[in-house]
Amino acid sequence: MFKSVEWKDGSVRILNQTKLPREIIYVDCKDVETVAHAIRSLFVRGAPAIGIAAAFGIALSGENSTATSCLLFQSEIEKVALLLSQTRPTAVNLFLAITRMKETLKAHAEEPILNLKKILLAEANAILNEDIAANCAIGKLGASFIASGDGVLTYCNTGALATGGYGTALGVIRLAHEEGKKISVFVPETRPILQGARLTMWELLQERIPATLITDNMVGLMMRLGKIQCCFVGADRIAANGDVANKIGTYTMAILAREHGIPFYVAAPTSTIDFNTASGDQIPIEERAHSEVTHVSGVAFAPDGIAVSNPAFDITPAEYIRAIITEKGIFKPGEILQ
Amino acid sequence: MFKSVEWKDGSVRILNQTKLPREIIYVDCKDVETVAHAIRSLFVRGAPAIGIAAAFGIALSGENSTATSCLLFQSEIEKVALLLSQTRPTAVNLFLAITRMKETLKAHAEEPILNLKKILLAEANAILNEDIAANCAIGKLGASFIASGDGVLTYCNTGALATGGYGTALGVIRLAHEEGKKISVFVPETRPILQGARLTMWELLQERIPATLITDNMVGLMMRLGKIQCCFVGADRIAANGDVANKIGTYTMAILAREHGIPFYVAAPTSTIDFNTASGDQIPIEERAHSEVTHVSGVAFAPDGIAVSNPAFDITPAEYIRAIITEKGIFKPGEILQ
Repeated sequence: MFKSVEWKDGSVRILNQTKLPREIIYVDCKDVETVAHAIRSLFVRGAPAIGIAAAFGIALSGENSTATSCLLFQSEIEKVALLLSQTRPTAVNLFLAITRMKETLKAHAEEPILNLKKILLAEANAILNEDIAANCAIGKLGASFIASGDGVLTYCNTGALATGGYGTALGVIRLAHEEGKKISVFVPETRPILQGARLTMWELLQERIPATLITDNMVGLMMRLGKIQCCFVGADRIAANGDVANKIGTYTMAILAREHGIPFYVAAPTSTIDFNTASGDQIPIEERAHSEVTHVSGVAFAPDGIAVSNPAFDITPAEYIRAIITEKGIFKPGEILQ
Repeated sequence: MFKSVEWKDGSVRILNQTKLPREIIYVDCKDVETVAHAIRSLFVRGAPAIGIAAAFGIALSGENSTATSCLLFQSEIEKVALLLSQTRPTAVNLFLAITRMKETLKAHAEEPILNLKKILLAEANAILNEDIAANCAIGKLGASFIASGDGVLTYCNTGALATGGYGTALGVIRLAHEEGKKISVFVPETRPILQGARLTMWELLQERIPATLITDNMVGLMMRLGKIQCCFVGADRIAANGDVANKIGTYTMAILAREHGIPFYVAAPTSTIDFNTASGDQIPIEERAHSEVTHVSGVAFAPDGIAVSNPAFDITPAEYIRAIITEKGIFKPGEILQ
């Protein structure tokens, strides 16, 4: 089984997802700048996986540190935390993992540097392992919403690649399949980066879960034809009022689901909930390079010199979401603060 | 000004739109098989342009005929009409143009073959010229729905490339711009063939009409952000009850427009109305090659050996359409039969 991020022989090993599924290339990051570049360039993506990568990035710079005083060590880690926090603005798991690593360091400020290095690495591994455990719990809770015979829509990639392992929304689908339910998964390709076509179809193929690739604009037709009974997506940040930031297009899928009377579920660990953000309007939306839209596989197809918009996420208001499935239970979006 | 289809020196000259905008390649079709291949392979696409290409294809086989009797000539044309009618199943303009050419031939059954050849070519040119005139009339009627300052969504390509010239939905936008209205056009790329990114952006760039390319899954967000005030799309076939078959994704755009209270207009010549089809459910939807979804510019990005769905069109029920703009006037979808 592949791992999107792991600690390997003193390096952070990251699977370069931009090359999947045609090439399987691991990058052994030996410094935190390489980790930051891997996050920024989408070698590793998916809110939980980004958080894990950042935690290992901090552990890595701890390992590499030649600081001679705890104060110097602490100041190095602060700089690294700032660098990592500027890689991607939307997924809250990134900031949560960075804050947790910094707080762990502060809680052990009296320890010698050699111990601090071990403590940081142990904390990063804990974040990884907690994420895998959360995914398994989410899968068990969420699979109850899937009946044998269902057509299931998922979106983008929320699988083992996007997390520490197993997956959130795709974990729910994986567990329903493991339970022996006969399901058929519909996978929109997820432009512009094609995570659905490249990553989700690859994971489903490996698990032999029946799946059909469609373009994003086919979802309405598939729903109208009665091929889809439920939808499961992940989240990059959940605001306190239950609004959900997720891959661009999620909002469109949610509207289509409601129009056709199909339940729309968000599956995400509680680490994705941001109690400091009151509503979706306050979540910053990353605008990415226009070449992501005008090129596929490095080949340009649109005319040169045109205006392009490339927001990487959109906000799905709470009213469109039937329930949020977390490792701690299933909530209505409006119940988060309760 | 480019022409998508024209009669040139005894050949049917077709602009190969699959190579646009990176390469401008004209194909001089010297036999009807080449015309049929050009239609099937999307060298020429867009419901009105397909009809025009088929009409010229019939005129071409008339020109090339060495038949020695009118009966033989007639039988050759019948065979050619059958071949052309099997190229694409959804756009009704194709069948209308073929029927019109056959009926023209029957109406002049007594004429010598040399005259028949001229009559067929004149009829194909008439179909072309009537389409251009219809587009100009549609543009004038439709532009009244666009106010200065509007953000206008269009979809796929309904411009000069898709028609005899000028365009239907894009003709409306073109005329609003010519009238001096300050508009901003939003162009979804239109997967899988990317007609929006490749063709509509190219036409708008040439006309210097401000336009922004987006992926299809960004439309919901753009509407929520208040960037779009009205939507104009074309049609491949309009059923008698006002249901509209158009490029896959149109149905999704129409649902999004209604959810955001944005008017959704269909602009099409009356040649696109099929009075013999009671409702959209009866319109055949073409399923195209899966490689259109799994490849862009000939490069594969999805894993091999997966299931793919590739319906080229969907049906937008009449209830989602504010009005249908034709060269003969503006109708509510339910008024077609009146």
